[in-house]
Amino acid sequence: MTKPAPIDLRSDTVTRPDPQMSAAMASAEVGDDVLDHDPTMRALEDKVAQLLGTAAALWVPSGTMGNLIALSLHLRRGDRFLAPRGAHVLTHELGSAAWLAGGMPEPLDCDAGPGRPSPAAVRANADGGGPYFDLRTTLLCLENTHNGAGGTVIPPHEHAQLAAAARDGGLRVHLDGARIWNASIALGVPPAALTVGVDTVQTCLSKGLGAPVGSVVAGNADFVTEARRMRKMLGGGVRQGGVLAAAGLVALERIDSLAEDHRNAALLAEGLAELGWAVDTPQTNIVLAAVPDVRLALARLRAVGVLAAAMGGKIRFVTHRDVTKADIEEALRRIRG
Amino acid sequence: MTKPAPIDLRSDTVTRPDPQMSAAMASAEVGDDVLDHDPTMRALEDKVAQLLGTAAALWVPSGTMGNLIALSLHLRRGDRFLAPRGAHVLTHELGSAAWLAGGMPEPLDCDAGPGRPSPAAVRANADGGGPYFDLRTTLLCLENTHNGAGGTVIPPHEHAQLAAAARDGGLRVHLDGARIWNASIALGVPPAALTVGVDTVQTCLSKGLGAPVGSVVAGNADFVTEARRMRKMLGGGVRQGGVLAAAGLVALERIDSLAEDHRNAALLAEGLAELGWAVDTPQTNIVLAAVPDVRLALARLRAVGVLAAAMGGKIRFVTHRDVTKADIEEALRRIRG
Amino acid sequence: MTKPAPIDLRSDTVTRPDPQMSAAMASAEVGDDVLDHDPTMRALEDKVAQLLGTAAALWVPSGTMGNLIALSLHLRRGDRFLAPRGAHVLTHELGSAAWLAGGMPEPLDCDAGPGRPSPAAVRANADGGGPYFDLRTTLLCLENTHNGAGGTVIPPHEHAQLAAAARDGGLRVHLDGARIWNASIALGVPPAALTVGVDTVQTCLSKGLGAPVGSVVAGNADFVTEARRMRKMLGGGVRQGGVLAAAGLVALERIDSLAEDHRNAALLAEGLAELGWAVDTPQTNIVLAAVPDVRLALARLRAVGVLAAAMGGKIRFVTHRDVTKADIEEALRRIRG
Amino acid sequence: MTKPAPIDLRSDTVTRPDPQMSAAMASAEVGDDVLDHDPTMRALEDKVAQLLGTAAALWVPSGTMGNLIALSLHLRRGDRFLAPRGAHVLTHELGSAAWLAGGMPEPLDCDAGPGRPSPAAVRANADGGGPYFDLRTTLLCLENTHNGAGGTVIPPHEHAQLAAAARDGGLRVHLDGARIWNASIALGVPPAALTVGVDTVQTCLSKGLGAPVGSVVAGNADFVTEARRMRKMLGGGVRQGGVLAAAGLVALERIDSLAEDHRNAALLAEGLAELGWAVDTPQTNIVLAAVPDVRLALARLRAVGVLAAAMGGKIRFVTHRDVTKADIEEALRRIRG
Repeated sequence: MTKPAPIDLRSDTVTRPDPQMSAAMASAEVGDDVLDHDPTMRALEDKVAQLLGTAAALWVPSGTMGNLIALSLHLRRGDRFLAPRGAHVLTHELGSAAWLAGGMPEPLDCDAGPGRPSPAAVRANADGGGPYFDLRTTLLCLENTHNGAGGTVIPPHEHAQLAAAARDGGLRVHLDGARIWNASIALGVPPAALTVGVDTVQTCLSKGLGAPVGSVVAGNADFVTEARRMRKMLGGGVRQGGVLAAAGLVALERIDSLAEDHRNAALLAEGLAELGWAVDTPQTNIVLAAVPDVRLALARLRAVGVLAAAMGGKIRFVTHRDVTKADIEEALRRIRG
Repeated sequence: MTKPAPIDLRSDTVTRPDPQMSAAMASAEVGDDVLDHDPTMRALEDKVAQLLGTAAALWVPSGTMGNLIALSLHLRRGDRFLAPRGAHVLTHELGSAAWLAGGMPEPLDCDAGPGRPSPAAVRANADGGGPYFDLRTTLLCLENTHNGAGGTVIPPHEHAQLAAAARDGGLRVHLDGARIWNASIALGVPPAALTVGVDTVQTCLSKGLGAPVGSVVAGNADFVTEARRMRKMLGGGVRQGGVLAAAGLVALERIDSLAEDHRNAALLAEGLAELGWAVDTPQTNIVLAAVPDVRLALARLRAVGVLAAAMGGKIRFVTHRDVTKADIEEALRRIRG
Repeated sequence: MTKPAPIDLRSDTVTRPDPQMSAAMASAEVGDDVLDHDPTMRALEDKVAQLLGTAAALWVPSGTMGNLIALSLHLRRGDRFLAPRGAHVLTHELGSAAWLAGGMPEPLDCDAGPGRPSPAAVRANADGGGPYFDLRTTLLCLENTHNGAGGTVIPPHEHAQLAAAARDGGLRVHLDGARIWNASIALGVPPAALTVGVDTVQTCLSKGLGAPVGSVVAGNADFVTEARRMRKMLGGGVRQGGVLAAAGLVALERIDSLAEDHRNAALLAEGLAELGWAVDTPQTNIVLAAVPDVRLALARLRAVGVLAAAMGGKIRFVTHRDVTKADIEEALRRIRG
Repeated sequence: MTKPAPIDLRSDTVTRPDPQMSAAMASAEVGDDVLDHDPTMRALEDKVAQLLGTAAALWVPSGTMGNLIALSLHLRRGDRFLAPRGAHVLTHELGSAAWLAGGMPEPLDCDAGPGRPSPAAVRANADGGGPYFDLRTTLLCLENTHNGAGGTVIPPHEHAQLAAAARDGGLRVHLDGARIWNASIALGVPPAALTVGVDTVQTCLSKGLGAPVGSVVAGNADFVTEARRMRKMLGGGVRQGGVLAAAGLVALERIDSLAEDHRNAALLAEGLAELGWAVDTPQTNIVLAAVPDVRLALARLRAVGVLAAAMGGKIRFVTHRDVTKADIEEALRRIRG
């Protein structure tokens, strides 16, 4: 008897291209994007800019590079930036915000809810003090949905207040919107409603939307011109990137399907709660569960064929397009044992 | 009638060279420290190394440069380092820990007391997670006395536990001992008792000890060799530095006199408390007072001839060798009005 | 009458995936390379390591990132590195060797021939002087074939002498082998014969070999472990990279076909010489022609349907797999007018 | 019999404060320059700004820091800058122009004479190429006198042409004027005649002028405001710096006395030439001599009581205020043997 395949809930990054996406990649019209601007790349960038409500956009190989480019262009050497405690730029990008962008982070307490600092917290931290003794604070970096907090959303009115608080304090705003599509679906608003007052946004095509590789960083035309230079400096300029952009264009047609991932996350959370697990109620496609011993719990899950990940002292399950409702039910059966 | 001179309690950095110190500077034997190692510089560095219990030491123009050199040599690009919330390296060095040293800071809660994180907090944060997803944590940066917390001390046994927690977690330890002399006097132990388990220390000659310019960064011989190179890269290599080192040598003879500064701080705190001010009991030469409106309070003090500074939302008074007991009594009279 | 399609000789980076390559991409077995190491990625990396004679290898999105990772890991802050004048790392990577790797370049005269510094030049520059006054020289960066010099090759015995000179001077050696495949074919030796004595190598799959995106940086196992971290910091970690690695594996089967590109370059150079152009005799797939006015010459070529590029004050034509012998003959006809 | 004291011609940095200077240091009016701007510092900065013809100026601990601050403020990440081959910023500042300022250097051939690139060379290199492929060139860094070339001067009309060439090419201009005072005396023009068309200048008080410690970086008011911040980041902010500024003010009264150093250098060069040495005719206070074996020659000189230094494959003798005409005659006697 063969062991059944594990159900992979480690991340929505594990999604694989399906036949439609593979076909699009195989037939993509391509050019040399460094020399000419690949036509499929351009179509993708235009489409994302339109969805996010920005003037321009640039494909990058990863969300980390998108965030890094934005931070590098917003921050002067040593500038202080604000980000919610546990933000991806603080915890999961290996310190590139400090080394490469030269920024000194100030983690904000999430006093308005998980993943959500209050506008008051932004205001209180916008001023670094006098011109000489203290740091120069120049940027607020938001994250919607907030991965480390469990896929939590910032609703449009609250986002607008945060952006306004930043503006009032003389700060620019970058949005790490790696999963902005999930936020949009969960909140029932278009993505552009979540970028109001923002200078730059980064979003991923390779998470819930299922593209194999790629993210996009967006802003005004001047930003994108400079971002293109910096992308080349960092080694993110590619040649016939149209093969990846074609997958990205297919991915963008699937935003609505994220609703199913959210339903599956709710199903999983309910099932775990019935089993006595201490789970947060998921707002999107991420379920966080508190356990006494993370390593042990992950090992036990693995032993029964369920893959999850550690995240900030908890266990994180992520639902995605390669996991069906039936898979979730099966995962719960396996956990129940 | 002329206005009386203000009593300057903004910082112990305002101390001026007295005649003995000036005479020492004027008669110092000097050499070209970049070419040869100036003899008075060498004498100063040897003396500080001996007092701090390290193998070697290097003069630097400022405490900021001493901290910066140590962090730059301890941290690889993007490495995470731990420091108590409000530490000088986080708040008063204009982000050089990020830009120049490339380090990603993790502020530790001061859960053991003002300016004092617990060994448990160090242990809990020593591991950045797996090798790939998370940051690589490599350094604990302590500060004794802790300026931002109000000149608070870490006693020897607690220091040793913190250093041990860092070691156990695979971390190196740098001590920002800008005011280690104050800690030594307040605790009644030699400075070397406060550097146990530490890789590198920085200390200042220009604060309570009264030298006009200069700090020292200390560690083992290899560290100091590399620190000398980095000092030159940063532009901190000077020529006939013996003129400053001579002042430093005089300053080091005055460590015991810091006890008077501490008594004066206690006197000031008691006086302010009697006037209804919300003051912390000072442990060394710094008095923090909570006021409703810092700017207004500073302006009122200035108007009556008492100079203080803002620090972390409070008012900071610092006693030092250019302020006598009589000056403190006069300051209290002026405040009383 | 429609205008005939231009013949694109701007670069071998313009090559597009053919049906075989597209099919391989569409059917690639993939995984999440950040979490797990994608199986097709791993196969590609193993294959390249074997061809280059290194212990390990890592896929990166571009040659620029491969060079940048190698330089960043070889150089400490401010270290001096040697590279032939006009090397890609000096001229075409937007200064990332300085900004990101922190290296101070020393361009070497190409005294042994175009693109080829002599071992004596390496020896003479290996020592930066004393420990304190002068720069610390730690790396020799070679380039084979040398793009800016016109695709010139360094033969194995000369390469070995250069590497030995570097070793003797205490330097590490990085090889920018973006077009090492062309050098291998032109010299009739396996690629590994051109990496003798080298610490790290970078090579591209997206130039003459025709993959749409991707390069590989190779070295020993420790190097690759650190390179993987740094790739993530730079934003070069991708998820289902197997789709690109599959194209890379197809590309590696086509090394022998580069001989045709070289024959076509020779044909083009002869034809241009017959027309009175001042052309260098090509050694691989690059033809450099000296003209009085580069911009004017490029515009005239474009007007007749031949695309070329400017390179160091000359015109550069590059032959590649999307240009046939008949295309070259047609290009010459068009130029002849 | 005691060995006679060596005659120290290694550098003009070995000069020691004389009694007048020591007295000025001992009686200097000082303040806390980080908090308040020390009054003697301010007087020195005003005086240097006036002499150099700039709007403002800032004291720094060393010429290296002055150059570093200027480069860091002029260059964006990865920007290319032009400097004469052998310039101090390229060879004697341990790579900080790359690591800290993030600049990619382009050494210019000194085609107009030793230490002097031609305006044509500046023009030819001002354009880094297209916006995407090539480096962005933004700065010309001149050096007058040029240390590595043997204290050579750039006369005012040639300086103006170089600055104009830079302007025409869209470049800013920084002048490393560590020894601008020597250039001024040798050329018989005020220092401000050598700063025409320049954005920023750095000059040293600790070389021929004899101050123990200190340099000044000068430019417009905005530049100096930012330079003050960056000085603090680098650790160059000091407290009672007036003690050093007082020495600097005395040093500035001695500019005319540099003429004697120049006469002594001429005397030394003639004497060495008579002994058959291959010496360049000195333009200021530096004499370069070509010898078959630098180390051997330095050792032999040391053995007879004459100290010199190695510089770019030659021997460098520097005359200064602590060496008299009689000392030079004695040095020649010792060398003659």
